[in-house]
Amino acid sequence: MKPFMDQDFLLSTETAKWLYHEVAEQLPIIDYHCHINPQEIAEDRKFENISQVWLGGDHYKWRVMRAGGISEDKITGSVDDREKFRAFASVMPQLIGNPLYHWSHLELQRGFGITEPLTQDNADEIYDRCNEILKDYSARQLMEKFHVKAIGTTDDPLDDLHWHEQIAADPTFSIKVLPTFRPDKAINIEKPGFDAYIQKLSETVGRALNTAEEVAEALCERIDYFDARGCRGADHGLDYCMYAEPDSKKANKAFAEALSGKRPSKKKADAYKTLLTVACAKKYAELNWIMQIHFGCLRDNNKPQFAALGPDTGYDAVNSQSGVENVAPLLNAFAENGGLPKVILYSLNPADNTAIATIMACFQGGGVAGKIQQGSAWWFNDNRPGMRQQLTDLAANGVLGRFVGMLTDSRSFLSYTRHEYFRRVLCELIGEWVESGQYPNDKKLLTKLIEDLCYHNTNEYFRFDVSI
Amino acid sequence: MKPFMDQDFLLSTETAKWLYHEVAEQLPIIDYHCHINPQEIAEDRKFENISQVWLGGDHYKWRVMRAGGISEDKITGSVDDREKFRAFASVMPQLIGNPLYHWSHLELQRGFGITEPLTQDNADEIYDRCNEILKDYSARQLMEKFHVKAIGTTDDPLDDLHWHEQIAADPTFSIKVLPTFRPDKAINIEKPGFDAYIQKLSETVGRALNTAEEVAEALCERIDYFDARGCRGADHGLDYCMYAEPDSKKANKAFAEALSGKRPSKKKADAYKTLLTVACAKKYAELNWIMQIHFGCLRDNNKPQFAALGPDTGYDAVNSQSGVENVAPLLNAFAENGGLPKVILYSLNPADNTAIATIMACFQGGGVAGKIQQGSAWWFNDNRPGMRQQLTDLAANGVLGRFVGMLTDSRSFLSYTRHEYFRRVLCELIGEWVESGQYPNDKKLLTKLIEDLCYHNTNEYFRFDVSI
Amino acid sequence: MKPFMDQDFLLSTETAKWLYHEVAEQLPIIDYHCHINPQEIAEDRKFENISQVWLGGDHYKWRVMRAGGISEDKITGSVDDREKFRAFASVMPQLIGNPLYHWSHLELQRGFGITEPLTQDNADEIYDRCNEILKDYSARQLMEKFHVKAIGTTDDPLDDLHWHEQIAADPTFSIKVLPTFRPDKAINIEKPGFDAYIQKLSETVGRALNTAEEVAEALCERIDYFDARGCRGADHGLDYCMYAEPDSKKANKAFAEALSGKRPSKKKADAYKTLLTVACAKKYAELNWIMQIHFGCLRDNNKPQFAALGPDTGYDAVNSQSGVENVAPLLNAFAENGGLPKVILYSLNPADNTAIATIMACFQGGGVAGKIQQGSAWWFNDNRPGMRQQLTDLAANGVLGRFVGMLTDSRSFLSYTRHEYFRRVLCELIGEWVESGQYPNDKKLLTKLIEDLCYHNTNEYFRFDVSI
Repeated sequence: MKPFMDQDFLLSTETAKWLYHEVAEQLPIIDYHCHINPQEIAEDRKFENISQVWLGGDHYKWRVMRAGGISEDKITGSVDDREKFRAFASVMPQLIGNPLYHWSHLELQRGFGITEPLTQDNADEIYDRCNEILKDYSARQLMEKFHVKAIGTTDDPLDDLHWHEQIAADPTFSIKVLPTFRPDKAINIEKPGFDAYIQKLSETVGRALNTAEEVAEALCERIDYFDARGCRGADHGLDYCMYAEPDSKKANKAFAEALSGKRPSKKKADAYKTLLTVACAKKYAELNWIMQIHFGCLRDNNKPQFAALGPDTGYDAVNSQSGVENVAPLLNAFAENGGLPKVILYSLNPADNTAIATIMACFQGGGVAGKIQQGSAWWFNDNRPGMRQQLTDLAANGVLGRFVGMLTDSRSFLSYTRHEYFRRVLCELIGEWVESGQYPNDKKLLTKLIEDLCYHNTNEYFRFDVSI
Repeated sequence: MKPFMDQDFLLSTETAKWLYHEVAEQLPIIDYHCHINPQEIAEDRKFENISQVWLGGDHYKWRVMRAGGISEDKITGSVDDREKFRAFASVMPQLIGNPLYHWSHLELQRGFGITEPLTQDNADEIYDRCNEILKDYSARQLMEKFHVKAIGTTDDPLDDLHWHEQIAADPTFSIKVLPTFRPDKAINIEKPGFDAYIQKLSETVGRALNTAEEVAEALCERIDYFDARGCRGADHGLDYCMYAEPDSKKANKAFAEALSGKRPSKKKADAYKTLLTVACAKKYAELNWIMQIHFGCLRDNNKPQFAALGPDTGYDAVNSQSGVENVAPLLNAFAENGGLPKVILYSLNPADNTAIATIMACFQGGGVAGKIQQGSAWWFNDNRPGMRQQLTDLAANGVLGRFVGMLTDSRSFLSYTRHEYFRRVLCELIGEWVESGQYPNDKKLLTKLIEDLCYHNTNEYFRFDVSI
Repeated sequence: MKPFMDQDFLLSTETAKWLYHEVAEQLPIIDYHCHINPQEIAEDRKFENISQVWLGGDHYKWRVMRAGGISEDKITGSVDDREKFRAFASVMPQLIGNPLYHWSHLELQRGFGITEPLTQDNADEIYDRCNEILKDYSARQLMEKFHVKAIGTTDDPLDDLHWHEQIAADPTFSIKVLPTFRPDKAINIEKPGFDAYIQKLSETVGRALNTAEEVAEALCERIDYFDARGCRGADHGLDYCMYAEPDSKKANKAFAEALSGKRPSKKKADAYKTLLTVACAKKYAELNWIMQIHFGCLRDNNKPQFAALGPDTGYDAVNSQSGVENVAPLLNAFAENGGLPKVILYSLNPADNTAIATIMACFQGGGVAGKIQQGSAWWFNDNRPGMRQQLTDLAANGVLGRFVGMLTDSRSFLSYTRHEYFRRVLCELIGEWVESGQYPNDKKLLTKLIEDLCYHNTNEYFRFDVSI
């Protein structure tokens, strides 16, 4: 029996242990996609208690607390932070098989040196110990503790990026904090607030936006603005991957309707969204940016709760109608338009894995290694079985050695341990393949493989340009 | 090499053995969803031979016999029972990897003390031995032998439940036999016989049913009738999960058309079905009932065989168009209508697992632990890999510790061994997690976990109110 | 640690080793579905170098080379064969987890006695050694070396099959080379070239083809022609499985439109395709042919590359809209039309596995063992995890013992090692089941099982009538 989450956690073979401890563990972290607020880095935020870091804004934890029978006042309500921590701790033992069980304990171990399993019984003691240690840490110190070299935040096109500029200009802080361009609000024409957003975009670029093409031009101007401030990539979030034959007239009809307060038909909305997306892709290709596409999320499903708590509070789910059938025509539209950038595809529906791996293989080429990528197991799939599945599916139909690997997608400064988790899962899987004779036990090849998958591929693909 | 199906069958680690033998094996059975005919319990039916128990009505076995090349006369035809048993036995060795191979041998072991593998060669001898032992058993004695505490049957709203009343009133029999309300025939408006059924429902409630709303009221009256007789839950069987925006006019159009012999359009039929389902859900919520929803079944696919043999004879399949995309809006409609009951979701399509686990998390809350459940691997998924997948997928996105666990879904008094099968699979999986250091080797936590998953969660969730 | 790909490759238990070495390895090969050009057998083609055998036409390898960053001139371009081999070798170490890594090394081992892993460093040396050995082999000699007893090629209805006749008449060559009837070009009405093909079919049968029914008659005439030349089966390749209610008028409208250069609507095209497919099925049933149906492939996704390189150059993918929901009504249409032949179903979408296994069970019967089959893991699923999944899913809902097993689907004379790969995966899986006590350790039963799955089932099902 292996001890609970010791130094060899998930490392089921000698090869896995060697790969992890001698190679993966030594490598710094590049977290190329997260939702950290750059202001918290610029101001070097400190935290009063572990509930603030752990439970504030963490809808993963909120969901399991609700399913565990905790009342809402102890989740998003007004009870005090200690009580919320106790409530979460009381659910922990039931979370067997949930990644939160591992993530939370990894964070307790690496962040606070706490190795015992969290339960209702030791919640108070652990709460106090964590808070004591938290006094010594700020946002920046946590990032340094976890050996982070660079991160990519997620930013609105209207953002002036002054926090990023302030961080970059600070000689006392060497971690790269680069923005990512996320133009969803200008593209998702069917969402509430679209018209107000277009108005703001119009003000930012200083001219009226009367057509879909003019919106595209405005976004391209903002892309240049972001590029000048170090940005090297974009992220598009789509409830479903759409595609419509190019049709400027239909797109502009949708745009006019949306601005006049009508909800355009799905067909017209898709025409608008496709036009904008293809135009952005071309601009990204010109600047050698990465284009991430996250699709297949059904949002805000529980309307009464959404009305009470707003977005990103734990009411999203996998969209079984992810639109994966539109990925190939969309990428082809990029190619036919002469602007196929480097693309990372993420579907929230794990049933799409093989489809994505085989579609992306159709758009590789041009002598760019790993030009199109299947993103790491995303959100609801970001767990050991989900990661193993993504790695296995990608390997079976792609070139695993070119994969750009892990990201946290997180708002928290403690979640860098998810990179450790990924690396352990990766070393476990590759260890199995080597020890079962499926891949040579060649330390030179294996070292290069792990280094590439944990660090170099990301650094090169995103042009972070940071050294080990 | 482990011996074939010995006492440690599927228990691959010492922890698994401990969990099973010290905890799971000791617990009685609550079979909360089955298709046992209550008359057979009330009259304490006896069986002439093993073919009657095993092959009569068991379309699982019929399907593999057909695929194994057995002619129909030896399956559903008129050849004698011994010949049918021989035919099934001849197919057995080819059923490697099929749950029937394990289910059948577990039943032979537990029911009849027969430990050798069944083949063509020993079919006659085993047939005779089983029949000898069967003489000593009646329906009730089989239930007691398997340590059953309570079951939930599946019953039509028009049923007067007199068999249930008779069983409850019988002081010589202590196993609870509670009905389950299954209103499919009043809801599935597109099926043949709908109009005749509405006529019968009208007679039962003693008034004309002229609108969809009046059908809903009639069903609510029958729900009260069932509730007064101990019923604590309902079960809705849907070829696909439907959802339509509330539209009483459209629903009533469909109703009028169906009664006049026309087949309403899918859109109108969905409006009717949604209206009825939402109304039932509200009533269930008021009474604190459980609402089971089984969806994603494509029925009666082979029309010539359906014409010859009728429904439930082995011609159903997974519906890849399960309508899982409608689950979130349907649950939301329950919530917006102020009547979201406890719900158990089952899709027949295993590709829906993660979607369901993530959708249901959006509707947890109200301080009710495990309010929305993902049902145990259903029908075609009710096998070791299917169960492991369901447990893993549920754990990854939900709170496994709150899962209500196993049911047989069966017509047979021998199939309680499927609970044993589930418990072995569960202990195997949790044993793996513990022995690989993914969960603490804490006997107190583990004992509680297994007891909850095998007994207490079901007992509490369904309010069976039976003691160990 | 097991050595890299030694004689016990993938054989993780003693039972697996026994099953493979004592049973599976001894059996000859029947490759019932491939794309070998019969002319190459008739003329007993020789190969100048390994690149010609390995890289010429192998779009599996082209895809990973593109993803590995190799420029197109070294893939399909004009650089010399040695340079292409070097380029492929340079990508090899990154292909961990990809079946090409194993297929390629199995071919090097079995074909050329080369046991070291191929890398950039030893590419030149291995290239030279392979070419030296290739001098000693012709197409026929390779087939004999791999102990091939019979193959099924893939042939156009217009083919006069003279190469097959020549091979059959050659007393110096005993391997059966039977044609397979592939009528796609007469059925896929929406594809470019349909009208020209109908014109050629008309010329071949010597009469005008004015209706869908007349096309069906023409195909039936060609089926008789093929049957007379030893053909025992057909293969239908569909982008998606279609079904439309029988509607001759609509089908003929589609036909008239297509011949006049218009593209018929999807509904009308489906009517035409269904009519043709149902008619062919009836003819196959009369002749006791096998009908293979391959569906769920999205072809030629990258239009600029398709324009440059043509079909089958690596730009195909899984169609997530595979039409699996139409399989049951299509098979039912065969049955209702009185012509349900033996059918093998392959979907390219692995998420369809359980749906297919459960649908096909609805059409078993008539006393024909394994009448409807789920095909071996196809194309993008033809890898170790894909095969294990298909075997597990099929076993769980069907009768694994009746499965007809492996095929190469290949254009190459070296790829017979894929049968070895399948047999190792099969023995590994069954070994696991036996050693974990899930199936009896009964050598007689197991020997029969493996022999059936590797040889006899195929031989009997397809009526190849070859002896061991």
